[in-house]
Amino acid sequence: MPNREQALAFAHENRARFLEDLKAICAIPSISTSAEYKDEVRRAAEWVAAHMQKIGLENVSVMDTPGHPVVYGEWLHAGADAPTVLVYGHYDVQPADPLDLWETPPFEPTVRGERIYARGATDMKGQVMASLDAAEAVLRSGGAPVNLKFFIEGEEEVGSLHLGKFIADHKDLLSCDVALNPDTGMLAPDIPTITYALRGLAYFELKVYGPKSDLHSGVFGGVVHNPAQVICELIAGMHDADGRVTLPGFYDKVLPLEEAERAELARLPMTEAFYLEKSGAPALWGEKGYTPVERTGARPTLEINGLYSGFIGEGAKTVLPAYAMAKISCRLVPNQDPADVEGQVRAYLEANAPKTVTWELKSFPGAPASLSRIDSAGVQALAKAQETVWGKRPVFKREGGSVPVVGDIQNILGVDVVNTGFALPDDHLHAPNESLHLPTWYKGIEALTHFFFEIGSRD
Amino acid sequence: MPNREQALAFAHENRARFLEDLKAICAIPSISTSAEYKDEVRRAAEWVAAHMQKIGLENVSVMDTPGHPVVYGEWLHAGADAPTVLVYGHYDVQPADPLDLWETPPFEPTVRGERIYARGATDMKGQVMASLDAAEAVLRSGGAPVNLKFFIEGEEEVGSLHLGKFIADHKDLLSCDVALNPDTGMLAPDIPTITYALRGLAYFELKVYGPKSDLHSGVFGGVVHNPAQVICELIAGMHDADGRVTLPGFYDKVLPLEEAERAELARLPMTEAFYLEKSGAPALWGEKGYTPVERTGARPTLEINGLYSGFIGEGAKTVLPAYAMAKISCRLVPNQDPADVEGQVRAYLEANAPKTVTWELKSFPGAPASLSRIDSAGVQALAKAQETVWGKRPVFKREGGSVPVVGDIQNILGVDVVNTGFALPDDHLHAPNESLHLPTWYKGIEALTHFFFEIGSRD
Repeated sequence: MPNREQALAFAHENRARFLEDLKAICAIPSISTSAEYKDEVRRAAEWVAAHMQKIGLENVSVMDTPGHPVVYGEWLHAGADAPTVLVYGHYDVQPADPLDLWETPPFEPTVRGERIYARGATDMKGQVMASLDAAEAVLRSGGAPVNLKFFIEGEEEVGSLHLGKFIADHKDLLSCDVALNPDTGMLAPDIPTITYALRGLAYFELKVYGPKSDLHSGVFGGVVHNPAQVICELIAGMHDADGRVTLPGFYDKVLPLEEAERAELARLPMTEAFYLEKSGAPALWGEKGYTPVERTGARPTLEINGLYSGFIGEGAKTVLPAYAMAKISCRLVPNQDPADVEGQVRAYLEANAPKTVTWELKSFPGAPASLSRIDSAGVQALAKAQETVWGKRPVFKREGGSVPVVGDIQNILGVDVVNTGFALPDDHLHAPNESLHLPTWYKGIEALTHFFFEIGSRD
Repeated sequence: MPNREQALAFAHENRARFLEDLKAICAIPSISTSAEYKDEVRRAAEWVAAHMQKIGLENVSVMDTPGHPVVYGEWLHAGADAPTVLVYGHYDVQPADPLDLWETPPFEPTVRGERIYARGATDMKGQVMASLDAAEAVLRSGGAPVNLKFFIEGEEEVGSLHLGKFIADHKDLLSCDVALNPDTGMLAPDIPTITYALRGLAYFELKVYGPKSDLHSGVFGGVVHNPAQVICELIAGMHDADGRVTLPGFYDKVLPLEEAERAELARLPMTEAFYLEKSGAPALWGEKGYTPVERTGARPTLEINGLYSGFIGEGAKTVLPAYAMAKISCRLVPNQDPADVEGQVRAYLEANAPKTVTWELKSFPGAPASLSRIDSAGVQALAKAQETVWGKRPVFKREGGSVPVVGDIQNILGVDVVNTGFALPDDHLHAPNESLHLPTWYKGIEALTHFFFEIGSRD
C-alpha cells in the first residue's frame, strides 16, 4: 500500500543523491537547435531512459521521431480505479552562448550558495528530475496511488516540431485522466503558483538583401541603400508610439481581458517594481493601457531576438553590408493563430520594404496559446499539494512563455493540463548563468509527491 | 643618365617577377585592426623594407610608432636641381571576414583569368608594389630623374592613427616637392583617372544596454524595452524620407557644389546604370536632389557598417537581448570636421534615446576630407603620363573613400598631393574576393614610370 509519510521521508533522505542525478543530466549539452549537438541530445535521452528504469518505471523506451527522440516510461499498477497521470517534460536545452558571460561553464553544473548553475538547470532538467524524484519517492513507498506515464521530449526549445504528430500517433499509449506540465514557474520562493494560461509563439528569421556582395562604404555609400539601415527601418516600424504592434490585423483575434480577470491579475505581486528589479532595466516599457502583468501574460508582443549585419568584430571596418538578418518572434495570446501572424509579417514587409532591397522570411514552428480550467480536478489537487508544503494557497497566474505541447495535449488527448514548476523569475532561463534555487526545488519534489497522493485519493 | 625607354623595357620584361613579388606580400595577413595579427603586420613591414633594399633604395628602415611601424626608404642622387617625390602607401589590409564567401583563401593569392584574388591585392598592396616596381625600373635605367622617398604605413585601415604625429615629427625626413598617393582608383580599365577630392571619415561604435542580462522573451517580453528594437528605432531616425542625415547640424559646414563642378561631374561615366551594375543592388537610393556621382563624391553620408544583438546562430532562440551594437560611420566632405560629427551623433542620441535604455558611444580615429589643385605640377605630370600610356587625357573625379593621410601631408608638409591608383570599381575592396585587374596594373606601373620622368623633366 502506498504510504504518503514514507514517500515524503524518502524524498527528504535522498536530497543529496537527487542533486547528483541532476548534475549528471545537466552535464550533457543537449542543445536541440544545433545539428552539431545531435549526438549529445540522444545521449541525454538515453540517460533519462536509464534513470526511468532505475527508479522502477516500466516499458521504458527511447522512441524515434523525425527529429530528436521522445523518452517514454510508465507504471500502471495502481489499479483500474486509480487515475492515470501523464507527466510531460523536455530534456533539451537552449544554446549557451554568449559563453563569455558564464561565471562557470554552462555544462559543468556548479553549486554556489543555494543555487545550482548550469544550462537547463531550471529549464527544465530540474523540473523533469523533480517529477521523476517524486515518482521514485511514491513508488518506493509501496507503489504509487496513481498510474504514471512520463513522456519527455527533446525538441521543446525548437518548438516541439514533431510532438503534435507523435501524440496523435500514440493516443492510446499516452491516454490519461490528467496531464501534468511542470515547465512553468513560481513568482517567488514563498509564493506557490499555478499557471492557467500560456502564451503561444510565432518565430521568424528575416533577411534583407541589398548589393550582391559587401561593398566599400566610401565608394558606394550614398547610392546603395544599406541593408542594415533598411532592416532597422523595417523593425522600427513594427511598433507604434504606444508600444502596439503594427502588423496588419495583429490584434483582430485577441481575446480581450475581462474586468474580473484584470482585477484578479492586479492582486498578483508582479508590480512595476518587481519587473524592474528582476530585469535590471533602467525603466519599464510596454503597450499603453495595460499593466505589466497584463502585458507579459495576456497581451501579445513582438520581440527582436537577434540582429546581424556586416562587421561586428573588434575595431573599425568600412563595409557596406550585402545583407542584414533579424530573428523576430511574437508571443501570442488566445485566440491568435501562428499561421495568421506569419501572413501579417509578410503583409507588413510587402507594404513597407523598399524596392532598393529584396527580402526573405523563414518561419520556425509556432504554437498557439493555451488556457486551463482552474476548477478541474488536476488543478485543485495541485493547489492542495502546494498549500500543504508552503502553508498557503497558491496564486493563479498567466505565463508569458510558451509550451507548445500544452495545446496539443488538450486538443488531441482531450484532458486538462495542470501547469506547474519551480522555476523562479531570476533563474536566468535562456540566458547566461542559468540556475535553479535548490530550497525551492526540494519543496517542489515534496509538492509533487503530495500531488500524486492527492489526485490518487480523489477517486 | 636615366633613360625612359630602358626603364619602360625593364618594367615590361619583369612583369612575371613583379607578380611573384605581389603574391609574396599579399600572402602576409597584415590585418591592422586585430591585435592577434600584430606580428603579421610587422612581418609585412619587414618584407617591404627588404624589398626596398633589394631594388636600390637607401637608408631603409622600419620605424616604430605607438602602433604599427612605418617603412621608409629613399634615393636622393638625382641632383640638387631635381625635384623630390614623396610616395605614400600602406601595407596593412582590412579583415577578411566573412571568410566563407571567398572562393579562394584571402591570404593565398590566386590568379584566375586577368585578375589576382587576395585581401589587399587592390587596397593597396598592388598599388604600393606598382610604385616600387616603377621606381625599380627607373633606378635600373641609370638612376632616377627625381629624388625618391617612400613612406609606407601600417595603420591606414584603422584610420592612420599615429601618422599625423609621425609626419610632424619627421618633417625634414619627409620634406619633398610633391607627394604621390596611389591609394585611389580608375573608373574603368580604359579611363585613366585622377582623383582631386577624397571624402573624410568619422567612425563610431554604439552600444545600447537594456536589462542587466539576456532575458527570456516570454517572461519579460512586453515590459522590457528590447535593446535590439531600440537600436533599430535610433538608426531608423538617422535618415529622413529624402535620404538626408538627420544628425543636428550635419550639413552646416558642407561646402555646396558649384554649378560648374556639377556640370563637370555630370560628364563622368558614373551613371545610374554604372552604379547599378557595379553594386548589383535592385535599385539605387540616396539623397534627394543629387545625382549618383554627386552623392558618392561630394555629399556626406551615414552608413551602418555592422549590427549585432542577441542570438544570431542557426535556429531559433527566444531571448530578449541585454544589449545591441551598431558600427556607424559617416563619409565627410569639405569642410566637415570629424570631431563636430561625433558631437552631432551624441546630441542626436541624447535627444532621441529613450529612458528605458542606456547607451555608450565609442569614437574611432576620423579624418577630414581633402581637395587637390588640378593645375599643380604634380597633377599635370601625372595627367601627361597617363595620356602617354592610355592614349587619352584622364578624367578628374572625386573619390568617395577616405585616405586620412592626404590632409596631413598637405597641411604639415605644405605640398600638393597627387592622388592616383589603378584600382577598379569591381575590385571588391574591403569585401570578400578582393582582386586586382592585372592588365590595368601593368599599365599603372608604366604610367608611374612615365610620371617619374615627367615630373623630373619639368625642372
